[in-house]
Amino acid sequence: MALLSPNLDIPFNVTRLSHVVLTSHDLDTTRYFYETGLGLEVTGHDANRLCLRAIEETGHHSLVFEKTDTEGPGSVRRIGYRMYSDDDLKRANDYFNARGEAAEFVERPCQGLTLRLNDGVGIPLEFCATMEQSDNRMQRFHTHSGGRLAVLDHIQVTCHDVASAYRWYNDLGFRLTEYTARDGTDEMWGVWLKRKNNTQDVVFGNGPGPRLHHFAYHTPEISSIIHAADVMASLDLAGSMDRTPGRHGIGNAFFVYFRDPDGHRVEIFSSHYNVIDIDHAPKRWELTDTRRSQLWGFPAPRKWFFEASEFDGVEVKEPLVDASPVTLEDFLENW
Amino acid sequence: MALLSPNLDIPFNVTRLSHVVLTSHDLDTTRYFYETGLGLEVTGHDANRLCLRAIEETGHHSLVFEKTDTEGPGSVRRIGYRMYSDDDLKRANDYFNARGEAAEFVERPCQGLTLRLNDGVGIPLEFCATMEQSDNRMQRFHTHSGGRLAVLDHIQVTCHDVASAYRWYNDLGFRLTEYTARDGTDEMWGVWLKRKNNTQDVVFGNGPGPRLHHFAYHTPEISSIIHAADVMASLDLAGSMDRTPGRHGIGNAFFVYFRDPDGHRVEIFSSHYNVIDIDHAPKRWELTDTRRSQLWGFPAPRKWFFEASEFDGVEVKEPLVDASPVTLEDFLENW
Amino acid sequence: MALLSPNLDIPFNVTRLSHVVLTSHDLDTTRYFYETGLGLEVTGHDANRLCLRAIEETGHHSLVFEKTDTEGPGSVRRIGYRMYSDDDLKRANDYFNARGEAAEFVERPCQGLTLRLNDGVGIPLEFCATMEQSDNRMQRFHTHSGGRLAVLDHIQVTCHDVASAYRWYNDLGFRLTEYTARDGTDEMWGVWLKRKNNTQDVVFGNGPGPRLHHFAYHTPEISSIIHAADVMASLDLAGSMDRTPGRHGIGNAFFVYFRDPDGHRVEIFSSHYNVIDIDHAPKRWELTDTRRSQLWGFPAPRKWFFEASEFDGVEVKEPLVDASPVTLEDFLENW
Amino acid sequence: MALLSPNLDIPFNVTRLSHVVLTSHDLDTTRYFYETGLGLEVTGHDANRLCLRAIEETGHHSLVFEKTDTEGPGSVRRIGYRMYSDDDLKRANDYFNARGEAAEFVERPCQGLTLRLNDGVGIPLEFCATMEQSDNRMQRFHTHSGGRLAVLDHIQVTCHDVASAYRWYNDLGFRLTEYTARDGTDEMWGVWLKRKNNTQDVVFGNGPGPRLHHFAYHTPEISSIIHAADVMASLDLAGSMDRTPGRHGIGNAFFVYFRDPDGHRVEIFSSHYNVIDIDHAPKRWELTDTRRSQLWGFPAPRKWFFEASEFDGVEVKEPLVDASPVTLEDFLENW
Repeated sequence: MALLSPNLDIPFNVTRLSHVVLTSHDLDTTRYFYETGLGLEVTGHDANRLCLRAIEETGHHSLVFEKTDTEGPGSVRRIGYRMYSDDDLKRANDYFNARGEAAEFVERPCQGLTLRLNDGVGIPLEFCATMEQSDNRMQRFHTHSGGRLAVLDHIQVTCHDVASAYRWYNDLGFRLTEYTARDGTDEMWGVWLKRKNNTQDVVFGNGPGPRLHHFAYHTPEISSIIHAADVMASLDLAGSMDRTPGRHGIGNAFFVYFRDPDGHRVEIFSSHYNVIDIDHAPKRWELTDTRRSQLWGFPAPRKWFFEASEFDGVEVKEPLVDASPVTLEDFLENW
Repeated sequence: MALLSPNLDIPFNVTRLSHVVLTSHDLDTTRYFYETGLGLEVTGHDANRLCLRAIEETGHHSLVFEKTDTEGPGSVRRIGYRMYSDDDLKRANDYFNARGEAAEFVERPCQGLTLRLNDGVGIPLEFCATMEQSDNRMQRFHTHSGGRLAVLDHIQVTCHDVASAYRWYNDLGFRLTEYTARDGTDEMWGVWLKRKNNTQDVVFGNGPGPRLHHFAYHTPEISSIIHAADVMASLDLAGSMDRTPGRHGIGNAFFVYFRDPDGHRVEIFSSHYNVIDIDHAPKRWELTDTRRSQLWGFPAPRKWFFEASEFDGVEVKEPLVDASPVTLEDFLENW
Repeated sequence: MALLSPNLDIPFNVTRLSHVVLTSHDLDTTRYFYETGLGLEVTGHDANRLCLRAIEETGHHSLVFEKTDTEGPGSVRRIGYRMYSDDDLKRANDYFNARGEAAEFVERPCQGLTLRLNDGVGIPLEFCATMEQSDNRMQRFHTHSGGRLAVLDHIQVTCHDVASAYRWYNDLGFRLTEYTARDGTDEMWGVWLKRKNNTQDVVFGNGPGPRLHHFAYHTPEISSIIHAADVMASLDLAGSMDRTPGRHGIGNAFFVYFRDPDGHRVEIFSSHYNVIDIDHAPKRWELTDTRRSQLWGFPAPRKWFFEASEFDGVEVKEPLVDASPVTLEDFLENW
Repeated sequence: MALLSPNLDIPFNVTRLSHVVLTSHDLDTTRYFYETGLGLEVTGHDANRLCLRAIEETGHHSLVFEKTDTEGPGSVRRIGYRMYSDDDLKRANDYFNARGEAAEFVERPCQGLTLRLNDGVGIPLEFCATMEQSDNRMQRFHTHSGGRLAVLDHIQVTCHDVASAYRWYNDLGFRLTEYTARDGTDEMWGVWLKRKNNTQDVVFGNGPGPRLHHFAYHTPEISSIIHAADVMASLDLAGSMDRTPGRHGIGNAFFVYFRDPDGHRVEIFSSHYNVIDIDHAPKRWELTDTRRSQLWGFPAPRKWFFEASEFDGVEVKEPLVDASPVTLEDFLENW
């Protein structure tokens, strides 16, 4: 598909990715991973629910785990975005229902007015403008630990129909900042979409889906990312590392990936950049350019591309276009 | 004055601080300071004009020097902001002229449509939505040097009438994120105002003005700030350091300040934080709290508060409220 | 005085600075400062004695506080060095007593054979080769906090007779790596002396003494030094900062200085360099070169040069040469 | 074999690894790799020879390339160590010849008195005490680039007879700091041996040899290692990365490995620790403990264990004990 024109006439203002709601089989184990390991702050914990947030965040939660007894790996309950005001939410409600998309207001703990609907590829979303506020730990430096995670930044979704996802989010005013396309064609393989000032709130990459590939917290210093890796190792959580530190060509993030006790993948990264101006053109990467995923030339393992968390009750569909970006031969070049 | 309600009904979208235009008596000396020293990229240099930008920036310039032969220290020609689109500029033109403020479109090299006017305290501004684009150096890592400056972030203005400035910018949709007030009163001493996602595009602090106190480039790593200080020293530019590295309580920036060959003050900093949500309340600091300016407790020297660059042709007025935040006695506590 | 030839024929091998023994009026307050604040590990704490060490250290202590009820600021009990083996200690005992210096073996908790004597300027020293060993925290990364202090590195002594101190330590095989001399003369103002592979185990600087100016822990990363400053501020210990972060010309250390609750000065620094080879010549700095103490050009406050901890029962003598390296005029250039 | 007692009665003082002499097929290409890429300083370059050194080094060279026209990958000419004085060299000459090892004095450019012999496993060595000196770049911060390499630290040798190598170097006073042994046995698989204050000057690991596995430069900051990786990528040298950044369990180094244009492997690392005291016991690692090579749990690729540079004219022998520490199955766990 060709690039879409950014939509400047949306009657509501989505501002950013807000929070992610996942399931956990054991909230204590999950807490140890995220609080003792990665350094997130626990803002709520009872028998059914664990709420966490990062150093800069003043809202109640950016990461929520709900207890599940279902067998198998953890799943995703919903993805939360912010709109700027409650008026935006009301206008959005009218907008979506007018389009025939079943939006509805729901009650959520510690959140203000919250609007629920499914996006164009079936992902359960919720939008709110306000959340219970409290002083963050930004200047309580002695409490910073693990990866010193500053703020929830984005999610990545493995998606069977990237083009449809791109269209749906473009309608909501999300802008494309970078993308992968099959060489010499318009066939989009991955799209980086954003509302806030940097490169992405949500990424869709080709593959069986929709499934949540990862969610990502930002931390400003490279040494904090390495320290997180060291801390996880010294807590006997080394096995949770999913992809070793590296530099993404796309988005320029310096990253490391872990898998939590329920198999959810979390990225810690630094070094995104700002995209604000209307004349800042989307950057194209050819699918065969391995620097896309790793600027230093080492391909990701296959599991990094194919394993992901399913959304509760959402069917996983095979991708419309062929999915594999990396071969065993590529990987074994480094063996 | 009491806090103002954010203005949500502005017919145009100012997105960020864009660029600063200053005078220089010797463009070669200025270039050495900013390019060889701090590591900015030169995008234009002729007999009359020097244009520079930072690593992430794709627009033509964020810092412009125009040659002057006037005696005395350098001065400020104008401050540039971005609006999102040319339509925003046109609506702004109507808006300002309807209010009786003499806005007008002007021609500027390497910029698109540009709207010129003076702000509420007399500062010459210009707004544009587009600028000549070119590939930046973000992933040309071997060219990163000095302080590895990533992006122009904000300016600070020494201002005789902080309350008026606050009102004028609030009308344009700028939000207050932090502020200093005289203890136990509503008398505002400093206001941190922003459009983009972080804490500030422009700061107004009480003092004789309007004068440009400093402009500031962001760099993500603390070690880059210290390296900039080391590089300036090894280039025999140690005398240009104006304030040694420290941590601002307000805004949380880790900073260092230099004075360029014409006396303009430039800050390099890391560690601003995000303010996006409507329920993220402005943070108040009491004027007597010295952690405001330096979290570690060391007061700034008086010159840091009082020396600043004048705007060309703009009268400097005495402040409406008493200006001095620091005494010689405070400073000599560390002697 | 002229430079001395290094003494290559000493019958024993002093390997490094080992530990510092200081007094404290309140061991709990001292513990909070060093353990909660700077991140040292407590290896012993009872009513009379507090022992601490850094991340890399496997010996029992590098810093010991003994409870005192004496009024006034804290004092120094003794300075500990290591020799390589107990045989070295025995040969040293013979050597010192043959020279008429009253060395004697003493018992010390958690140390092996320990030899006690006073150095050439009256400082009480003790030498040992072994100390109770235990696993350190080097790869227990989740316990690293504060300034992530890695290892005790050196002490600095304010001394009334730098030339005598230099001669006494040179006799023991200490090598001069850098020094300050009054411009155009042989009059030594400061000497950097070392046994281990880097630039210094002990520094003597001109002034009323002998008094302990500071002891210093090394940490490899600049960002850890800044984090220590931030942590101290967020623990309400900002008032303990004695000198803000900077870069010493001599020794090249990036530093910050604090004063503990008893007034003892502690430096945290990174970036010393190696001096091992016989042809690595001592580096001379002129006394008037302010880059000596601060490469960036900001002079230290007078108190940094003149306040120091006295040694128990050791008379403080006026310096043989005039002491002041910095004037109020210099300092106020930055006001 | 059991651990050997350190030899304290050697009539000469080897102080550290000094330099490495390798062959190159194209000195210009080699220079681009090490100077433009990694940031070493060129101290000599003519048609036959290229000399380089790191930021802290005052001697003429720590890395020398000699032009070769021989087909195949580059080879190693010799390994240089320092002794403390020329008298040490003379005593060493007597010592080696008395043992029947053919030591002889040779002439080397820019080095003082130089003693040549082969070590116990056939590696050509040379020892010198002095080298042409010149001001280094330590405080010329504006010249620091690439990985900001500070100092040559150690080499690692793939060796068919680790036990013999350990005995030979132990005789010369090298101390064992860490080692790998086959689980539950005394069969040594790798030995970390050192003279200077940290953990290693030379490492021997089991495998066909002797061959030079790598030489390693130290840099203090983690972010410099990542920057080196980024710089190599932005210079189109990404293909030279041999092993992505990680943390060695043994020695605690944070590392990255590259292969130069002739196939020589170079490590950049931070975070070694000090070993000085006689009671600092060697640390044992079981061969099956994968944290040995990578604390985070990711095994090295097989090529990292098996590819290495041969020494000119020195036969490569099969190891006395089985060599493979990692299986394809292990590696593919991360696929």
